[in-house]
Amino acid sequence: MPGNTFGRMFRITSWGESHGENIGVVIDGCPAGLELTGKDIQVELDRRRPGQSDISTSRKENDRVKIVSGVYEEKTLGTPVTLIMENKNANPDDYREMKEKFRPSHADFTYREKYGHRTWIGGGRASARETAARVAAGAVARKFLREKFNVEIYGWVKKVQKIEAPDFAPGEISREQIEANSIRCPDSKTAGQMIEAIEEAEQKGDSLGGIVGFAATGCPAGWGEPVFDKLEALLGHQLLSIPAAKGVELGSGFAGTNLTGSEHNDEFIEKDGEIKTITNNSGGVQGGISNGMPVVGRVAFKPTPTISKEQKTVTTSGDETTLSASGRHDPCVLPRAVPIVEAGVALVLADLALQS
Amino acid sequence: MPGNTFGRMFRITSWGESHGENIGVVIDGCPAGLELTGKDIQVELDRRRPGQSDISTSRKENDRVKIVSGVYEEKTLGTPVTLIMENKNANPDDYREMKEKFRPSHADFTYREKYGHRTWIGGGRASARETAARVAAGAVARKFLREKFNVEIYGWVKKVQKIEAPDFAPGEISREQIEANSIRCPDSKTAGQMIEAIEEAEQKGDSLGGIVGFAATGCPAGWGEPVFDKLEALLGHQLLSIPAAKGVELGSGFAGTNLTGSEHNDEFIEKDGEIKTITNNSGGVQGGISNGMPVVGRVAFKPTPTISKEQKTVTTSGDETTLSASGRHDPCVLPRAVPIVEAGVALVLADLALQS
Amino acid sequence: MPGNTFGRMFRITSWGESHGENIGVVIDGCPAGLELTGKDIQVELDRRRPGQSDISTSRKENDRVKIVSGVYEEKTLGTPVTLIMENKNANPDDYREMKEKFRPSHADFTYREKYGHRTWIGGGRASARETAARVAAGAVARKFLREKFNVEIYGWVKKVQKIEAPDFAPGEISREQIEANSIRCPDSKTAGQMIEAIEEAEQKGDSLGGIVGFAATGCPAGWGEPVFDKLEALLGHQLLSIPAAKGVELGSGFAGTNLTGSEHNDEFIEKDGEIKTITNNSGGVQGGISNGMPVVGRVAFKPTPTISKEQKTVTTSGDETTLSASGRHDPCVLPRAVPIVEAGVALVLADLALQS
Amino acid sequence: MPGNTFGRMFRITSWGESHGENIGVVIDGCPAGLELTGKDIQVELDRRRPGQSDISTSRKENDRVKIVSGVYEEKTLGTPVTLIMENKNANPDDYREMKEKFRPSHADFTYREKYGHRTWIGGGRASARETAARVAAGAVARKFLREKFNVEIYGWVKKVQKIEAPDFAPGEISREQIEANSIRCPDSKTAGQMIEAIEEAEQKGDSLGGIVGFAATGCPAGWGEPVFDKLEALLGHQLLSIPAAKGVELGSGFAGTNLTGSEHNDEFIEKDGEIKTITNNSGGVQGGISNGMPVVGRVAFKPTPTISKEQKTVTTSGDETTLSASGRHDPCVLPRAVPIVEAGVALVLADLALQS
Repeated sequence: MPGNTFGRMFRITSWGESHGENIGVVIDGCPAGLELTGKDIQVELDRRRPGQSDISTSRKENDRVKIVSGVYEEKTLGTPVTLIMENKNANPDDYREMKEKFRPSHADFTYREKYGHRTWIGGGRASARETAARVAAGAVARKFLREKFNVEIYGWVKKVQKIEAPDFAPGEISREQIEANSIRCPDSKTAGQMIEAIEEAEQKGDSLGGIVGFAATGCPAGWGEPVFDKLEALLGHQLLSIPAAKGVELGSGFAGTNLTGSEHNDEFIEKDGEIKTITNNSGGVQGGISNGMPVVGRVAFKPTPTISKEQKTVTTSGDETTLSASGRHDPCVLPRAVPIVEAGVALVLADLALQS
Repeated sequence: MPGNTFGRMFRITSWGESHGENIGVVIDGCPAGLELTGKDIQVELDRRRPGQSDISTSRKENDRVKIVSGVYEEKTLGTPVTLIMENKNANPDDYREMKEKFRPSHADFTYREKYGHRTWIGGGRASARETAARVAAGAVARKFLREKFNVEIYGWVKKVQKIEAPDFAPGEISREQIEANSIRCPDSKTAGQMIEAIEEAEQKGDSLGGIVGFAATGCPAGWGEPVFDKLEALLGHQLLSIPAAKGVELGSGFAGTNLTGSEHNDEFIEKDGEIKTITNNSGGVQGGISNGMPVVGRVAFKPTPTISKEQKTVTTSGDETTLSASGRHDPCVLPRAVPIVEAGVALVLADLALQS
Repeated sequence: MPGNTFGRMFRITSWGESHGENIGVVIDGCPAGLELTGKDIQVELDRRRPGQSDISTSRKENDRVKIVSGVYEEKTLGTPVTLIMENKNANPDDYREMKEKFRPSHADFTYREKYGHRTWIGGGRASARETAARVAAGAVARKFLREKFNVEIYGWVKKVQKIEAPDFAPGEISREQIEANSIRCPDSKTAGQMIEAIEEAEQKGDSLGGIVGFAATGCPAGWGEPVFDKLEALLGHQLLSIPAAKGVELGSGFAGTNLTGSEHNDEFIEKDGEIKTITNNSGGVQGGISNGMPVVGRVAFKPTPTISKEQKTVTTSGDETTLSASGRHDPCVLPRAVPIVEAGVALVLADLALQS
Repeated sequence: MPGNTFGRMFRITSWGESHGENIGVVIDGCPAGLELTGKDIQVELDRRRPGQSDISTSRKENDRVKIVSGVYEEKTLGTPVTLIMENKNANPDDYREMKEKFRPSHADFTYREKYGHRTWIGGGRASARETAARVAAGAVARKFLREKFNVEIYGWVKKVQKIEAPDFAPGEISREQIEANSIRCPDSKTAGQMIEAIEEAEQKGDSLGGIVGFAATGCPAGWGEPVFDKLEALLGHQLLSIPAAKGVELGSGFAGTNLTGSEHNDEFIEKDGEIKTITNNSGGVQGGISNGMPVVGRVAFKPTPTISKEQKTVTTSGDETTLSASGRHDPCVLPRAVPIVEAGVALVLADLALQS
C-alpha cells in the first residue's frame, strides 16, 4: 500500500496533508559531510511558493523550512535529514462545497474508492501542497550533485497551451534567464504571450496547461541501472508522479519518431580526449545509462482541473449537480512546476549517482 | 547497482545475455492457484518473435518457453515461477566489426563506461533480446488479471514515422483487428501505408520509429499508490525501461496541453449505479489512482539505431571511422513492440492489483 | 546507505538525533479507517520512558507524542502517519569528556569510521533515544493487530544477569502481571531478586544485562513469506536492530538443541475443528509461516556499556586514557526494553499481516 | 507476498522446488570484472551436498552447477549472474505417505494454510534443497569479499545436542581443521563424540540438533547501516531464514548476559597505528557497524523433524494418525549447515560492502 517513498540510496519519504498543521520529508541516504543550511532549501521553496506573481494563486504559503534532524553545525551527519514546513492559511471554507460533490478530474472520487472515506476539507495528499516536500528534498539532492559532480539542473516553461518557445541548447540557458519573468520562459517574447494567455484564461474562469523542459549538465557517463532502472525509466517514474503530469519524453521524444534512423542517430566524435556525440537526440542517455551529454527532456502538464467556470458533475451519492470552484487557484501551474520538475530530476540523479 | 528486478508484490527478475545460451525470468509473488501452461506464455512470445513477417528481421528465435518452477499440475504454487528460453541462431560474426567501433545511439559506449569492459559479441543485456523475458512474465500477469479481474490489455501501432492511424475508443478495438496485419495497426488503410513506408526505408538501409498506443479495460477503481507510486508513474517507469522508448503519455498526454481546463476536465456521470466520466482525458487515472475507466496511453519509440546505411562514428580508442551494420535487423520495431508494451502494462497492473 | 526504514507494507521511517530538538517516525502503509489517538501511543511511550522508577535513569524525557499527519477526526486516512516527540533535558555536559575519548562498546568509534566525523554531544542515532520512535510506531501496529485480528503481544523480563524467572505459558500471562513491578518480571519473587541485583550493580557503578521474553497470541496461520522473509527471519532482523540486543531465539531456541527430534517435534492434534499442536517448540512458526499457535521467543541484551566505573580506553588519536561515565544512565535496560521488544514484534506482524 | 529475494545491492533471487527439474538463483549486483568459474561455486556446493559421509543422508544430489548468465570469458559482466542446478534422484515414493498426513514440525500444514494447496510430492520450497541456491550464491559473494577485501569466512560445528566443542579464537581456525572430519568440528576429540552421538540417534530412528559457530575475518570498520539495517540485524535476518534455524547470537550473545558491564565492555587499544579492542564480546560490531574485529556469532539448529521413529499426528482432514518417515534423511543437519551459514554471512557482508 505505501507509495510515499522514492529512491533507493538517496531515499525520500514525504508526509503531511494539505489541511494538516505541517508537511515534511525525510531524506535517508544523504552522504555525511555535505554543507547544508535552511537557505539552500528555502531558495527553491520560494520558487515553488504560491503568490509569487500576478499569474499564480493568491493563496499564501510562506513555506519556511526547518531542518529538524541530520544536520549538525551546518553539515550533514549521514543520518536522516528531516525537513518540516508549516501549512498556513489553509481555508476549509474553500472546500465546503466539495464536501458532497466530486470535482471533475480531481482525486476526490478515486481516493474515496481506494480508502473508503473522504477528507473534503482539502486535497490531503493529492493536493499540490505535497510538492513542497519534493522541492525541499530536491534542493538537498541538487546541492549534493553540484558540490560533488558539478551537475547543474535547469527547468523552464517550454509551452503554454499552444504558445511554444523556441528550442535552447542546454549550454545556452542560465538560471537568470529563466527567472527573468513570472512565467519562467527564457524567451522573453514568448513569455509575454504566455502571460497574456494565462491572464485571459483566468478572466474566463478557466485554466491552461503546457510543457516544462529540463536539462541536467555535467552528469558523467555511467549513471543508470539496466534493465528496469534505466535513467529514462526512473525519470519517467519520478516526473509522472508529479500531480497533473500526463507525459514525459527524453531527448527527441515523441517528435523523434518523425525522423529516420540515419537522421536520428547521434554520431560519436572525439573532442579533447573525450568521446562525445554531435547531436543529442538520445537526450544524454543510451541503453539506459548516461553518456556524458546533457540529460534533456520534457514533461506535459494538463490544465489545472480546479476552475471557477461552472462544470457538470455528480454528488457523492451519484446525483447530477454543478460546481464552480471558489477559493484561490492557479490558472496555470507551469511556472511553479519548473522547480518541481528540477527537484524530480535532482532526486533521480542523486539516487543513481550513489549507486554508481 | 542492480536494476534487473521490477515490481513489489508481483515482482520479476530478468536475466540472460543475448549471446548466452539462455535468457529467463523469475516471477515472485504470482498468487497460488492460477491455471498456467506454457501455451499461455508462448502465444505472447510468438507475437514478439523476430521473423514473423516481411517487415521484421529474418533472425530466427524460436523462443520456446519452458516453465521450470512454481507450477505443478498446471497450477501456480505461490512460489517463484521461472521461465527459461533458449537463445538460438546468435551469430557473433554479425558483431565482429563492432568489436572496435561504437555503434551510434547504441549502448556500446555507455556500457563500457559503466562496467569497464565490452562484450562486443552481442548486445548483452542491452539487446532487445531481453524483452522476451518481459513478454513471458507479462503473459503470466495478463492471465492473472484476466482470470481474477476481467482486465484486458490491448496495444497497437498508432504511428509509423509520419503516418498516423485515427483514434479508437478502447471498447471498439479487438485482438483480431490488431493481429489482422503484420504492422499491428487496427486501421487497415493506414496499415498498408505504414508497411509501404517501412519497406521503402529498408531498401535505403534505413529504419523508422513510431508510436504504440495501449488500453487496459476492466480495471476497478482504486489501483495505484499515492504519492510516488501513482499508476501513471509506474507505467512511466516500466514503459520507459523498454529499449528504444523515448516518451510515455497517459490519457490526453502532450496533446492535452492544447486544451483549456474546462475542455479537458472529465465530467462525472452516474450510469447504472456506477460513477463514470463522459470523456477520458484522464486516461483512467485521477490522483494517481485508477477511476474505473479504461487506462490508456502511448509510447514513443525512436527509429532502430542499427542500420546498414553508412554512418560516421569513432573506434574504441576514439579514432574517426565509419560503420555499416551487417546482420539482420528490424527496419521498424513497432509491430514487435506491441506485445512488449502490453506486457509492461500487465506487469504494472498486476503489481498494483496485489497491493490494493 | 540508508537503513532508517523498516517493513514493506507497514513501513516505518525513523529519524532524529538524541541531541536534536525532535525525533520522529513516519508510518507508511497503515490502513485507512483505524481509530487512533495520541493516547494509544502515549501509553506505550510511557512504559519506555526513562525515570519511571528507582532502577531506571533519572534522565527525564516526557516524550509527549504528537500525531502530525495521517489522522483526521481520530481515524487514519491511509496516508503516512507521522509521530513527533520533543527531546527534552538533553545535557551536552554529560558528554563533554567523550569528545576526545572512545567509549568502550559504544558506537563512537564505528560512527567515526563510517561517517568520518563525531558528534560527541550525544549518541545521535546510536542513542537509545531512537527506540522511542519504534515504540511509537509499534503502538500503531499493535492497535491495528488488536482491532483487526485480535492479536495481543506481551513482553517481560525473563532474566537479569544470572537471575532467571520460571517459564510461563503465553495464555497465563497478563499485562497487569507484567506491569506489577518495576522490573516487568511477572514472577514477583524473581522480580524482587532482580531489582536487588540491579541496585547492587548500580552502587558499584556497574550495569547488568539479561533476557526479554515475548509472546504474540491470536496470529492466524499463514503469516510469513518463504524463503528469505520467514516470520523468524523478520523477527530476527527487527529485534537484533534494537540497541544492545546480541541474540534472538524463537520457540525452543538454543535450549532446543539439547532435545532429540522425537522430543522436539510438535505433535498435531485436532481441537474444536482446528488443527493445533500439543507442544510449541516451533514457537508458532513452521517453515517460516505462522501456524496459529502463539509466536514466542526471547531477546538477549548485553549489559549497558555506559558505566561510571573507571575503564581503560583510547582517545580519538589513539592514546591510552581512562573514562568514567558521568551523567544519568540505566544500570539495566531490561525493564525499558520490554515495550521496545513488543513494538518490534508488532511491527513485523503488522507488516506480514498486510502481505497475507 | 514475495520473499525469495535477499539483499539490496548484492541481491539474490532463489527459485525452484525440490521436486522440480531444477533449482537456481539469480545474483543481481555482483560487480563487473570478478574472475568466476563454476569451480569457485562447485567447491562450496560439494560441502553442502548430501551423501558426503556416513552421517549424512544417502540421498544423492550431484549438484553440478551451471553458470548460465552474467559471466563471459570467466569474468563477471556486471549483469545478473544466474546459477542453475539439476534436481536428481528425487523420489516421490518417499513422500506418498505424507500425501494425507501432516508431518510434525514441518511446513506441510502452514503451506496449506497459506497457499490453499499441498504439493505432497516433496518439500517444495520448504525443502532443505533450497539451501543449495544460497550456498551457490554465497560462493560468489565469498569470492568477491576475498578478492576485494581479503575477508575470510569460517563456520564450524560448535555443539551437537549436549556435546560442545571448546571456544576458538577466529585467527586460530583454518579451513583444513574444519574439513578434517565429517562433522566439521575443528576439535577432533569432540568431533568423535559428536559423530558417535549422531550414529546412535540414527539407530534409534531419531535426530539431533546443535549449534554452528562462524567468524568473518578481515572486514574493515564501517560496514552496516544504522538504524534498522545494522550488521547484526541483517545477519539475524539471513541466518534465521535458514531452514531449522531457531536462534542467532552475535559476539557474547546469550551467555554475555551473565557478565556485568565492566566485564563485558571491550577496551580499546592502539596497535600498530590501528584502534582495536582487547576482547571481542561485541562480536566485531558496535552500534550496528563493523569495528574491524572479527565478526563472530552462532546459529542454533533444531533437531531434523523428519525421523523414522513413529510419531502421532493428524491427517489433512484432522483425524488422528501416526507417521514414520521412510526415505533418506540426515540424522543431523549440522555438518551440512556449516557451508549454508558461511554462505549467509557472505551474502550479508557483500551486500553491506557495496553500500559502504
